[in-house]
Amino acid sequence: MPLPRPTRAVLERNLPILQWGKSYDRDTLTSDLVAAVIVTIMLIPQSLAYALLAGLPPEMGLYASILPLVAYAIFGTSRALAVGPVAVVSLMTAAAVGNLALQGTAEYAAAAITLAFISGLMLTLMGVFRLGFIANFLSHPVIAGFITASGVLIATSQLKHLLGVDAHGHNLPTLLGSIVAHLPETNLITLVIGILATGFLFWVRKGLKPLLLNAGLKPRLADILAKAGPVGAVAVTTLVTWLFGLQDHGVRIVGEVPTGLPPLTMPSFSGEIWSSLFVSALLISIIGFVESVSVAQTLAAKKRQRIIPDQELVGLGTANIASAISGGYPVTGGFARSVVNFDAGAETPAAGAFTAIGIALAALLLTPLLFFLPKATLAATIIVAVLSLVDFSILKRTWQYSRVDFSAVAATILLTLGFGVEVGVSAGVLISIGLFLYKTSRPHVAEVGLVPGTQHFRNILRHDVQTDPSLVTLRIDESLYFANARYLEDYLYDRVVGDNEIRNVVLMCSAVNEIDMSALESLEEANHRLRDIGITLHLSEVKGPVMDRLQRSDFINDLTGRVFLSQYDAMIALTSSENAA
Amino acid sequence: MPLPRPTRAVLERNLPILQWGKSYDRDTLTSDLVAAVIVTIMLIPQSLAYALLAGLPPEMGLYASILPLVAYAIFGTSRALAVGPVAVVSLMTAAAVGNLALQGTAEYAAAAITLAFISGLMLTLMGVFRLGFIANFLSHPVIAGFITASGVLIATSQLKHLLGVDAHGHNLPTLLGSIVAHLPETNLITLVIGILATGFLFWVRKGLKPLLLNAGLKPRLADILAKAGPVGAVAVTTLVTWLFGLQDHGVRIVGEVPTGLPPLTMPSFSGEIWSSLFVSALLISIIGFVESVSVAQTLAAKKRQRIIPDQELVGLGTANIASAISGGYPVTGGFARSVVNFDAGAETPAAGAFTAIGIALAALLLTPLLFFLPKATLAATIIVAVLSLVDFSILKRTWQYSRVDFSAVAATILLTLGFGVEVGVSAGVLISIGLFLYKTSRPHVAEVGLVPGTQHFRNILRHDVQTDPSLVTLRIDESLYFANARYLEDYLYDRVVGDNEIRNVVLMCSAVNEIDMSALESLEEANHRLRDIGITLHLSEVKGPVMDRLQRSDFINDLTGRVFLSQYDAMIALTSSENAA
Repeated sequence: MPLPRPTRAVLERNLPILQWGKSYDRDTLTSDLVAAVIVTIMLIPQSLAYALLAGLPPEMGLYASILPLVAYAIFGTSRALAVGPVAVVSLMTAAAVGNLALQGTAEYAAAAITLAFISGLMLTLMGVFRLGFIANFLSHPVIAGFITASGVLIATSQLKHLLGVDAHGHNLPTLLGSIVAHLPETNLITLVIGILATGFLFWVRKGLKPLLLNAGLKPRLADILAKAGPVGAVAVTTLVTWLFGLQDHGVRIVGEVPTGLPPLTMPSFSGEIWSSLFVSALLISIIGFVESVSVAQTLAAKKRQRIIPDQELVGLGTANIASAISGGYPVTGGFARSVVNFDAGAETPAAGAFTAIGIALAALLLTPLLFFLPKATLAATIIVAVLSLVDFSILKRTWQYSRVDFSAVAATILLTLGFGVEVGVSAGVLISIGLFLYKTSRPHVAEVGLVPGTQHFRNILRHDVQTDPSLVTLRIDESLYFANARYLEDYLYDRVVGDNEIRNVVLMCSAVNEIDMSALESLEEANHRLRDIGITLHLSEVKGPVMDRLQRSDFINDLTGRVFLSQYDAMIALTSSENAA
Repeated sequence: MPLPRPTRAVLERNLPILQWGKSYDRDTLTSDLVAAVIVTIMLIPQSLAYALLAGLPPEMGLYASILPLVAYAIFGTSRALAVGPVAVVSLMTAAAVGNLALQGTAEYAAAAITLAFISGLMLTLMGVFRLGFIANFLSHPVIAGFITASGVLIATSQLKHLLGVDAHGHNLPTLLGSIVAHLPETNLITLVIGILATGFLFWVRKGLKPLLLNAGLKPRLADILAKAGPVGAVAVTTLVTWLFGLQDHGVRIVGEVPTGLPPLTMPSFSGEIWSSLFVSALLISIIGFVESVSVAQTLAAKKRQRIIPDQELVGLGTANIASAISGGYPVTGGFARSVVNFDAGAETPAAGAFTAIGIALAALLLTPLLFFLPKATLAATIIVAVLSLVDFSILKRTWQYSRVDFSAVAATILLTLGFGVEVGVSAGVLISIGLFLYKTSRPHVAEVGLVPGTQHFRNILRHDVQTDPSLVTLRIDESLYFANARYLEDYLYDRVVGDNEIRNVVLMCSAVNEIDMSALESLEEANHRLRDIGITLHLSEVKGPVMDRLQRSDFINDLTGRVFLSQYDAMIALTSSENAA
């Protein structure tokens, strides 16, 4: 029996799989399978490496790349987004969990699982309650600055693996200090492996594909081979380590990775753990969502598709819950792998599910081969991946465009580097909101006059306009609300006091989108003060929604002057009555 | 040798006493002296009572009314503001210090002194760095709601003194529960004294002055006598208690109050105490400043004088530092006593200094007389004073005018009553900022057309206007910034997609006061997306400061369309070129 249409529509909105599933055919299957193979090859070393970055055992990276992908395929709306462990969220996980337990302990892994669960719950609830707009309070420059600074932090944190030394820290000074202190313990063989792997991976990224194309390979094959670069580095360095027994010469290796499908795990429900992870989970959720949704939107726009941000929250939320119950840690949509997935031809979220099967096979079959994999190789993978995130040009661009944006970016970068990811991103958000509020609390007020031959009014300081000494028209370039209510009151009073020619003041409200109760009281006060010195106060170009509200107060009745539909009407009425008088 | 003029101007700005001191004459002196006498009579019982409310020994109330008044007279700009202990700040002091020490201990008093010092330092620094604007972020309705709820809390907290029982709590449920639990221990004699004193004081406030005027007294004398009501209540109940030995029947009395001038005290400099008092001191500073500055501005406006908010911060800051070094606790400008001071004819801040002399004489001579003063009388003084602050009409007014303001007030009142002053006022500020940000993140966008016979454009839904099917004009009623950048991008795309007649889109920017970097990126994105579907994007009525900034970016070069000075120009150009095509 078919479902009634409205029920079906509701189901389809909440389960996007029902929409694209209907028209799934053999061609789509082929495209999705090819994309899945390429993403799987890319994701295996990345999963291991990002788990290492998060301070977790490598298998947790694999686990985080299986069930979460299936959950996202069911609930997500982006057709190209590839979900899994990503660099910035892994770093944030390490920072959050590092406060609770020591790396390498069972408590540490359990806290990471709980973090994924809390974050998943938050994201899902934000989606259900349509709170996706919260992410808008992260300004683009703040995100760009944060990602760049995180990239620097991540790359620095991996230097210890290239050197084969111990080092700790969640901010740049501590990390660098710790690495410098341990420099004398550098393991030369590890360093050689690390440098060669890093160099090779940079070359693969830039130079391999053109070379293969020149050699006559088909573009798609060249692409797959280039993407397989990290797998090649993993294979070669593992083989070399095993052949020469380098682990006995101080080269640190991954060691035993359990074989098998992800275990069923349970997050902790301890109130204490939840409260100490709460803020971190919120930051991870928002950063993860913002990153993911912007990749998803960019890719969707290329195919004239749309993604639904609130449904994306549910998709990412369920992916994180899936991660928590299957031995993983926080995941989100990754930039590089989503672009690869898209370029490789993924047509539906099913590509993600196929990738999950690929990773599951790896977890079942390949883990014994990873025993001799040097950690330095994984560190090289991470360094090459994150350095592409580092882009300080945002500083230059914001400096040219707006000092306010520049301050927010610069503060975000400095605080992230100096005090770690959590302080950095929180400060970035608070600073951008604070600067916005500060700007709106001191609004631009322009005194305007008539542009000759038109009915248009502009700033008397910028344009050659007509004015009348008895009439002052002030265009207020901001909504009037509590933070600037008193400012306007003072501005108005300062402008008119001592100028005895003035009979009429018009507040041109074309840019006033809101007058709140505090501002209303200030306007009432201004009206009374001006009346006491014989000046009539008028308004013009008050917008519909603002006027509706004013009419519910006594202000319009008390106003000594009138409310004009347009500033031109006001000028005609007030200057002609003046002439008549 | 006279100072050079610029130095003198700087000195006068920072030491207002140099300005009004120059023209001080005998008439001014007489006016100030009369006002000082009246305020002194009013302030003696209030100082004792508010110290009781703050949980401090009564002499600290007197000390807080001596040196601080002298400091304000030197550094403050208001000519009528009367500084000293006030009800709301006393309650906030009790809430802040109560977290650190038990009432009645030396640590408790020391913490109150330290609180005054920290608050004084904060206020002075805010003044020096011109941060007075911070106070603007307390919206009028939030302040009104907070004061009303504080009044209710204060009056309730004093019931225990009327009943002669012990009760504690910084929020309404705890206070009421505690009072009800102790009801059986009510001391009947105390209750009788308390009720009579309260009744008498209410009558003095409302009925005494008309009666005295009818009896033929001169208005000024009638006024002084009416203001002396609390002193009368203090004298009579003290006498009765002494005569009948009521202290032996369970009536709690003030007991021994040290005689003499204020002692020299030192605030604590313990980092631990400072960090635990920091937030409280900030809240007390801001609330005290906002209250004080609004009284001062109201009174100054009546005489066409001006106060300088940043200098007021210095005045209040030094007053609090003075309080801390002379055994007092946090002070600010009081509403009732400033109005009394003003009405009594105070012409300069010297009136405050004379009041200080009056209170100092009281501390030297009158304290032995206060031994038998019942605490119930002081409680009655407080109750009568604070009930005049309680005004729930703000709820009705905001409900009619704006649901957003109403939500902020209602939350402030409920949270203050339910969780105490600190939670209440912090929540009020955060909620009003949050609601403002939420509103601006979903801006009003109006599709506009030409009002026939004018060059004026209004909303097509509200006005009968001319439009053209190939041209969509959207007036964006908000500054474009990070929180609404994506919203606009989506709105624009949703409006044009699927409407094949559209060739041109004009964004009318008369209400756009700012385009930040995030919004710029969104506009660039929108420009590209519209270009891809064959639609040209134009801007009109871009303001000077916004245009200056856009010209520093590549956006104007990339823009597919033009930037028109006025929307009328845009319509003429785009509809005629359309006809020609």
